[in-house]
Amino acid sequence: MIADTITIIGVGLIGGSLAKALKQTNSVAHVVGYDIDESSLQDAMQLGIIDSYHLDIQEAVKDADIIVLALPLSAVDCVFSSIGTTINESVVITDVCSVKSAVTDSARVYLGSAFSRFVPGHPIAGRETYGVQAATAKLFTDHRVILTPVMETETEALQLIKKMWTNVGADVCNLTAKEHDSILAATSHLPHMLAYALVDCLSGLREQDGIFKFVAGGFTDFTRIASSNPQMWHDICFSNRKELLAAIEQYSQHLDKIMEALKCEDSEALLAIFQGAKHSRDSFIQRKKNSQSLLDQ
Amino acid sequence: MIADTITIIGVGLIGGSLAKALKQTNSVAHVVGYDIDESSLQDAMQLGIIDSYHLDIQEAVKDADIIVLALPLSAVDCVFSSIGTTINESVVITDVCSVKSAVTDSARVYLGSAFSRFVPGHPIAGRETYGVQAATAKLFTDHRVILTPVMETETEALQLIKKMWTNVGADVCNLTAKEHDSILAATSHLPHMLAYALVDCLSGLREQDGIFKFVAGGFTDFTRIASSNPQMWHDICFSNRKELLAAIEQYSQHLDKIMEALKCEDSEALLAIFQGAKHSRDSFIQRKKNSQSLLDQ
Repeated sequence: MIADTITIIGVGLIGGSLAKALKQTNSVAHVVGYDIDESSLQDAMQLGIIDSYHLDIQEAVKDADIIVLALPLSAVDCVFSSIGTTINESVVITDVCSVKSAVTDSARVYLGSAFSRFVPGHPIAGRETYGVQAATAKLFTDHRVILTPVMETETEALQLIKKMWTNVGADVCNLTAKEHDSILAATSHLPHMLAYALVDCLSGLREQDGIFKFVAGGFTDFTRIASSNPQMWHDICFSNRKELLAAIEQYSQHLDKIMEALKCEDSEALLAIFQGAKHSRDSFIQRKKNSQSLLDQ
Repeated sequence: MIADTITIIGVGLIGGSLAKALKQTNSVAHVVGYDIDESSLQDAMQLGIIDSYHLDIQEAVKDADIIVLALPLSAVDCVFSSIGTTINESVVITDVCSVKSAVTDSARVYLGSAFSRFVPGHPIAGRETYGVQAATAKLFTDHRVILTPVMETETEALQLIKKMWTNVGADVCNLTAKEHDSILAATSHLPHMLAYALVDCLSGLREQDGIFKFVAGGFTDFTRIASSNPQMWHDICFSNRKELLAAIEQYSQHLDKIMEALKCEDSEALLAIFQGAKHSRDSFIQRKKNSQSLLDQ
């Protein structure tokens, strides 16, 4: 057992899965839920994912040993400002947001002395499904969780959150917030931009029915992420815009390399790019297969 | 029955699936196979996909009523030049290549008077699997086949090839080669370039292990097409470079729109692009679900 009471703010796929996994592994005695949507909390109670819930956020966090913010980036400021002045003096706080600099800045503003017990975190896990009904205790198994402690972060707080994630099967590592945001800009936010831009481009090229009816399976795979929640991705990309801009600029140079090879009819250069990319991706997939479950293949 | 003897040049996934489907629907009496790899032909015989085979291409096409080139783009010139002078005077020829202008130009050069009986075709179907062992009679069911006849194309030849594809369950339509190549540049060749460029970019950004270990499921989906056969995609893209360059240039404008919104911190514009793209993709997927089997979902 790592703590008596944990409060999950936002009982959706991520928050619900974490709660479920912590209960299954006997990591906590009591899970308290808070959500702006009461029906999610009722579902979570019925599913045995949480033990109790509050509709008043200050009540929800009052007795917590750990508070987990498992909510959209856009709600972070509001939650920090609501709980900042009332949380107890030993509680450890963490979050699961996809951009770490912005969340850390917000925590610094609102959490006062509790900032040293805030451990910014990001589990690299997700599904195309949403909501507490989709919660599964296996969501984090063999998935990476990145923690981005700052100088002020207390070692005990960091160790506790690390233990929480390893207890549910995750593979935890530490990075700086800047490293995290720069890596995620390239591996996650950039692909989303590319997919959104492709669909935007095809919609603009000609009357949709005329072009979309000719797409094949590859396109469907490629653009799946363009069907993600636009508000959520707006918040992530806007909040991480500096790193994302750098990633898009880097990317453009590689796209230019391909254009250049096509323009100059440089057959060898074109083939070398494709071969190199296939090699990189294949060996990445192979390493992933060797080291991880195949959940995301 | 649409013909007595059909010769399939290249007995892999596409050629094998077509042969299988034509036999299952009693569309032809005899299927002759030709391939540079004899073991594929032996496998195809054993699987009952072809009735006989030849290792001499001229022998293979001698008695054919229909010849189908189901082979990589790079082999087309060679096959046309091998059969151009020996094919009989009534045979109808078609192909399955992904770029239609180049194939049509080649046919015009090598087929002589038989050019009027050449019907360029492209089934928008494929799997991630390869080879005749993966052949399935259902491959073309509810999939689109684009035929790109030219002024010289004889109506009877066009009708025969149309019948061949409808017999195996495909949905056939006619376009010009230029329309085809421009549409496929946007819907298929461009996404491949974007995926290759992304993997190329990530491999270049920093030591691979450092970045690839943080990628999530979305990246895997997004870059699946970058694990496609590099030589095949090189041939397709190089051969369709003019249309592909135009598509990449168009695309870059849409990526620039996103960069501009990020640079100017234009939150509304960014959200509008994402919302529009999600709407377009969702309604495209919905239409596809309504009108097609879910094979490629």
